[in-house]
This record gives sequence, structure tokens and C-alpha cells, in this order.
Amino acid sequence: MEFLRIPSISTLPEHRRDVEAAARFLARKLEELGFPLVEVITTAGHPLVYADSGPRSADGTAATAAPTVLIYGHYDVQPVDPLDRWDSPPFEPVIRDGKVFGRGASDDKGQVWMHLAALEALREAAGSWPLRVKFILEGEEETSSTHLHEFLRRPEAREMLAADVVVISDTPMYAPGFPSICTGLRGIAACQIDVYGPDHDLHSGVYGGAVANPATVLARLIASFHDEAGRIAIPGFYDAVEPLTPAEREAWASLPFDETSLCREIGVSALAGEEGYTPLERMWGRPTLEVNGIWGGFQGEGTKTIIPASAHAKITCRLVPHQDPGAVLDSIEAAVRQRLPAGVSYRFTRMEGGRAWVTSPGNPFLQAAAAAMAEEFAFGRRPVFVRMGGSIPVVPALAERLEAPVVLLGFALPGEKFHAPNEHFHLENLRAGMRTLVDYWLRLGAWPAPLAGG
Amino acid sequence: MEFLRIPSISTLPEHRRDVEAAARFLARKLEELGFPLVEVITTAGHPLVYADSGPRSADGTAATAAPTVLIYGHYDVQPVDPLDRWDSPPFEPVIRDGKVFGRGASDDKGQVWMHLAALEALREAAGSWPLRVKFILEGEEETSSTHLHEFLRRPEAREMLAADVVVISDTPMYAPGFPSICTGLRGIAACQIDVYGPDHDLHSGVYGGAVANPATVLARLIASFHDEAGRIAIPGFYDAVEPLTPAEREAWASLPFDETSLCREIGVSALAGEEGYTPLERMWGRPTLEVNGIWGGFQGEGTKTIIPASAHAKITCRLVPHQDPGAVLDSIEAAVRQRLPAGVSYRFTRMEGGRAWVTSPGNPFLQAAAAAMAEEFAFGRRPVFVRMGGSIPVVPALAERLEAPVVLLGFALPGEKFHAPNEHFHLENLRAGMRTLVDYWLRLGAWPAPLAGG
Repeated sequence: MEFLRIPSISTLPEHRRDVEAAARFLARKLEELGFPLVEVITTAGHPLVYADSGPRSADGTAATAAPTVLIYGHYDVQPVDPLDRWDSPPFEPVIRDGKVFGRGASDDKGQVWMHLAALEALREAAGSWPLRVKFILEGEEETSSTHLHEFLRRPEAREMLAADVVVISDTPMYAPGFPSICTGLRGIAACQIDVYGPDHDLHSGVYGGAVANPATVLARLIASFHDEAGRIAIPGFYDAVEPLTPAEREAWASLPFDETSLCREIGVSALAGEEGYTPLERMWGRPTLEVNGIWGGFQGEGTKTIIPASAHAKITCRLVPHQDPGAVLDSIEAAVRQRLPAGVSYRFTRMEGGRAWVTSPGNPFLQAAAAAMAEEFAFGRRPVFVRMGGSIPVVPALAERLEAPVVLLGFALPGEKFHAPNEHFHLENLRAGMRTLVDYWLRLGAWPAPLAGG
Repeated sequence: MEFLRIPSISTLPEHRRDVEAAARFLARKLEELGFPLVEVITTAGHPLVYADSGPRSADGTAATAAPTVLIYGHYDVQPVDPLDRWDSPPFEPVIRDGKVFGRGASDDKGQVWMHLAALEALREAAGSWPLRVKFILEGEEETSSTHLHEFLRRPEAREMLAADVVVISDTPMYAPGFPSICTGLRGIAACQIDVYGPDHDLHSGVYGGAVANPATVLARLIASFHDEAGRIAIPGFYDAVEPLTPAEREAWASLPFDETSLCREIGVSALAGEEGYTPLERMWGRPTLEVNGIWGGFQGEGTKTIIPASAHAKITCRLVPHQDPGAVLDSIEAAVRQRLPAGVSYRFTRMEGGRAWVTSPGNPFLQAAAAAMAEEFAFGRRPVFVRMGGSIPVVPALAERLEAPVVLLGFALPGEKFHAPNEHFHLENLRAGMRTLVDYWLRLGAWPAPLAGG
């Protein structure tokens, strides 16, 4: 509750001190937990919190034979607007109906807290931890993890963060009653397209018909990016994309998927997308090109009879394995350049990019996590291996930098309103998740020796 | 100068009293000019100023045999932003280089003033006016002339405004050195299209690929409104459109038209538009569909990975003779309805509409105006009959209500920055225009009897 009360909104400059307070809160807790090395690493942005239980466990027991785990999480949260849609104030957490409500309850303070609490419980019950534990906690996940990425490029980062496995609890389970482990995330490639026509807004009566309208040109460009079948119609876009394997398609097809309830949840009358693929395949396994925003000209009440001087669109693509963000942006820019009519010019701005990430469900670290989850979530079924449509660029970054497998062992639930008013976390999952973590550490600690990354 | 100093910006509520002050200023001037009947007509918006010299001229001379002229003009002006682009304050008029600079100098206070000054000069020189003169001056031309239109529908309006010809000086000449009379205006049909998808912005990673994106849908709709040849691809849109006559095309082709200098003036590298037509034909004689504004989703700095809940466009069409604004909007809405994919809904909002207006250059009132202009503008050439791409809905409204020909006898010049910073009016045209008006009234006054509208 104390952690949730800190309004650590990383995107708003006025909350800078709150974000720092959340970092100091975590550092203090880690010290209280017995971590001999706790460091608040300052960056040009928000700080990183680093901790290492050391080659020996907190009480001096040798633990070098067991693997080392690095736990990643974030202590920053999303903004809270629209504030009037919250049933209780976002930074005054309350428990109602078996759920804790408050900004960050599930994303990600609640799940970071589970890790601290699980380690505390384990130490109290067993006297020590059965493996070496490191933490890297950041305060910029809701912006773009800029300074964690920068830190990862530092020479000392590799040694500081070195681990046999990275465990992250920042993802939702597939559905209530379906404990799951995420084995893939899509990548991302973002850009902005600006179309420029006349050097000032023109009277649409006087000049209309004789001048290329930047808003129309932009609309025609965007329309040209997909064909009638919902496929992306940009030469080269799919070059690196491998078809989904029959095994993957079969596994996903066996998952329960209720199209009607998804439609109800997001408020649409029907799903849409690329022909020949199921909704799960479209969301998890196929690349996309989405307009995140578009604007140009007059947006006020009534009518303003202008040909706007410019029009703009923000676009993000979601990428699948093997697609290179730079190459994808190259293909889009080439299409813009080739398709632009006379009388207008364009600017193409490249923004963030990150590759997709996939891991094999066969990796023993994932198998052990699944076994722990199966034990502690009393649903009578094994966890399912799923993918997610979103991107967590820090996942491939950690995996590559540390050459270690990443286990996305998340305990949130879809519908817990991450990023939205009335964010909450189910207490039953908080408890079962903590038990799962304890179980997981005991399993890994019982292994004879560090494993090579799988 | 006193008239120009009144900041009568009709669109800004804080200038309401200034607009009223401009109306009172005109009423006082009309009384000083000797009009026996001057009335400030209050409306739910800004007032109308009405004057009538009566069936006899101001000095009692019978003038009933000559035609009656109704002069229309407006005393409201456009807003002045961006203020920092003005070389001198917009409401502190100054004379530089033979031009008077100030908001309203050409649009339309300067041209209204010419009418008052011409009548004053004529009375001083000749002792009386050779014809009956009426004025109807409004303060809402820069918004939408709402209350003038409302007034025109009143039963008494027809008798009050009854005239043999309506003369309006609110248009530019074709080019410097080319006195011209405008014989046609395009009509207008305005609408807004809203496309609604999910009931809130969705995470474009989690859901991207499986949901129709309203911004993309809107872009595809807009793209579908034109074909590759720049023709409007909406069934029924051109149904009422008659081809341009060979005579019109020939007359317009004979006008000097410098494509390079137009491109430079508006800041584009090339003109564009419907294949098979010249730029003048596209601007004057062909209907258009222009996006005046488009918006949806994220417009800030950086990236926000959403599928926007909705996307919006404001559209105005310019219409040519015989096109009905309602039918044109019907055709657009039908296209939207038919082309909308599953998973989104739309709202189609009809806004202002007005028919095109054309008059025959052969009408004797136009011929007389041309003769007066030829006499007083020492360019050695006859005025040219041109059209304009814009719409002045009050022109067809007056023509229909009064069943009288309208003569658009404007003395402004393109490049005089109407609606923009540094609006100005050339004093040489002010003087030649005043002489033209005096000449015109003398010609009409010499006619034996009122003419039927031509």
C-alpha cells in the first residue's frame, strides 16, 4: 500500500521527485530484505535500482552451485487521467471484492512487490535463499526504457547483471483460470509521416481542385499500405517474415478464445484483419501497420474552408521474428517516396524500433516455471504457452546483452485495467503468484549447477 | 481610416461591441449622405444596416424612371492572428507605397467605403443621384451570413430590398491590370465524417492486426473519393454537372495565366487536379471534394501505441451550376455507408450548403458595368468576364429572393492578403473604382426605365 501510494508517473516532469521516491523506497526494502549490495544508479532520466544477494546467500550459506536469477521490474506507472473515471483515488489504494485498486496495482508495482514478499517469506521460512538473486528495477518502462537501454550498453552492465535466467513479472496471464507463460513478443518500428503542400493553408474555394491536398494525399498513402485482404501492401515489408508453423497454429487454435466476449470487452461489433489468419494469429504471429494518430487542417467546430498546408500521421508496425525494424522503416519510406504525387513533399521521421522476441517453451527454465505455476495455481491444468502482441523492448535487450533466457512469469489478468482508470490486481493471484515464485526458486535452487541459457 | 480602426471581428464574441460600433458608424455615414431612411436592423447575431434613398432622390428630384440599385457589402472582418506577422498593427491603418494597410482594407470595408464616397462625390458634383439607391450591409459575412439569410426569408424583406440590380464590390479583379467582372461562383456542400471503432483507445500491440483501425478506415474512405485521374469517384456526384461549353473554355483559355507564379504564390512545386482540365477550369468550372481537416488518435511528441477509438474528417465540396448541395451530400453519405468495412460505425453530419451561381455576361447591367470599368481603368483593355472558385452564398440568395441580376463589381487585387496578415488595398484601384461607380450610376440613371432582370 505504501508503494502504491507513491505517484511515480514517469512521463510527467512534475512527478520526477515521486519517481525518485519510489526508487528509494525499493532500495530501502531491498536493504531490509538483507541484500548486501543495493545501489540506486542515477541516469540522465529516472534512476535504476540494482541489488545483488552476492555469490553467497544473505546468511552466509554457500549458494554458488545454484543458478543466478536476475529479476527485472519497473516502479514507474502510467498517468491517471481521466481522473473522474476512477471509483477511488488512483494513489489511495483500497481493497474491494478481493482486489487491490490503485495505479500500478498490476502494472507493475504489485508484481514487483510479489518478488520482494516471496523472498522475504522464503528467508523467514528457510533461513536463506537457495540461489543468487539480482534485481534491476527501472523507472522508465512507461516511457521507453531509454536509460536502462543506455545502462545495458555500459561495459560494467554485463558483469553486474550476469545471470543464468532473467525473470520478469510484468505480463498478464492468458485468461482467468489459465495460468500462462509468455514465449513471444512482437517487435516494433515507429515512424511519422508528414506531407507538405502549400506553404500556408489555402482557401479551398479559390484554389480547390487545382492543388494537391496534403490531407487527401496522406489518406491515399495510408490507404495504399493495406490491400483489400488486409495484407500490408508495401514491397519488402514481409521479406523476413517466416510463416507460422503448423505446430504453433495448432497450439494457439487449441486455446479457448471467445470472439464475442473480446468484441464486447473492446466495444466493437466485429473483429477484422488479415484474411487467412485467426484473431490470435493476427495479434501474436503476424506483423501489423497501425495508424496511431492522424491530423492536419481544421479540427474545430463548424466549417473552415481550407486546403491544409500539411497533414501528419504517426504509425507503428508490430514485427515478428527476423524482421529488422530499420529494414521495415526503409520499406515504408520507399513506398511513401514512390507513391507521393506531384505538388507535395514529405518528411519521414524514424522513431523507436525493437526486434521481436521469441523463446522456446522447451527451455528448462520455462519448464520449471510452468511446473511451479501448475503446482500453485489450483486450476487443475498445466500453464499454457502463449505469445503477446505487444512489445517489451527490454526483453530482447536483456536476452541479447546477457545471453540468458528470459522467463515472462506474469500474474496479472486481462481486464485489470492496466493504463486505464480503476487499475487493480486480484489478491488470489497475488497470493498464488507469491507461492509460485517461492516454489520456482526452490526448484532452481535444487539444480546441481548453473545451466547454460537455453 | 476611422472605419478601418474599428476591430469588427465577427467571429470573436469579445468583439461584439466593435461589430455593433461599425454598424452604427455606417448608419451615421448613410444619414450624413442624405439617406432619408436608415435603419439598424437587430438580429439574433450582428445587426444589418439598411438604407433607402426613396422613390425620389435626396434633393427631391424625381428619379423614379431610372432603375433601383441595391448595394450589398459587409462591415465585419476576419480575425488578425498571427498578429506578429503584421508589419503594422491591423487596426491602426497606414498608407505605405500607395496602399492602405489594415484589416478590412480590401475585404470589405475599403470597398464598402468606395460606394459611400462615390455617392457623396456624385451628390456634390451633380446635386442628386440619378437613381434610387438602397444599401444592405451585414456584419456576419465572415461567419456565415446566418442572420442576413434569416432576414431574407422575412415577408417584408422582398419589398424593402426590391431592386432592378444588386451590385456587390467584394471580389478581386482577375489580375493587376485586368479589370474584371465575376460571372460565376461555385456552390458549397459541407459535411463531417466520424468513424468509430473500439469504445476506447486500444493498445496497438495487444490488439493490433485483429481490429479495424478507425484512422485507417477513414483514410481508405477518403482515398476512395477520388480516382487516379483526380476525378471524384462517388456514384451520382457528377449527375447534375453539365460540361463546360467550348465558348467558356475558349474565353478562359484566352486569359493570361502564369502557372509558375501561382505555384510561387502558394508555395507548391506543381499544380495538380482533375485530368483533362486546365487549372482555371478546375478552380472555376469543376466541382471538388476537399478535406479541410482530419484528426484522430495521438498527435503529441513521440509515440503512443494506440489504435484510436475514432477518426474524423471535415470535408467541403465546391459545386457547379445545377448541383444540389443536399443531393451531393446524399451521394457522399451513400458512398461512406457502402464502403465502410465491418467492425466500425460512422456518423455523417451535414453542415452548410449553397448552390453555385452564374450569370450571363450578356445581361445589360453587366455590360454597363463593364463599359464603366473600361472607361475608368486606363489599361486600354475591356474588362474580362471571369468566375471564382469560392462561394458567396448571399449572392445566389439575393438573386433568387429579389429575382434580380447581381453584378459582382469588385476592385480588390489577388495578393492583397484578404484574411491574412498585412491585408491592404491599392489606392489607385480605390480611386479608379470610385470613378467606375460614379460612371456606372450615371449610365444606369440615363436609362429610360427600369429593366427586367436579365
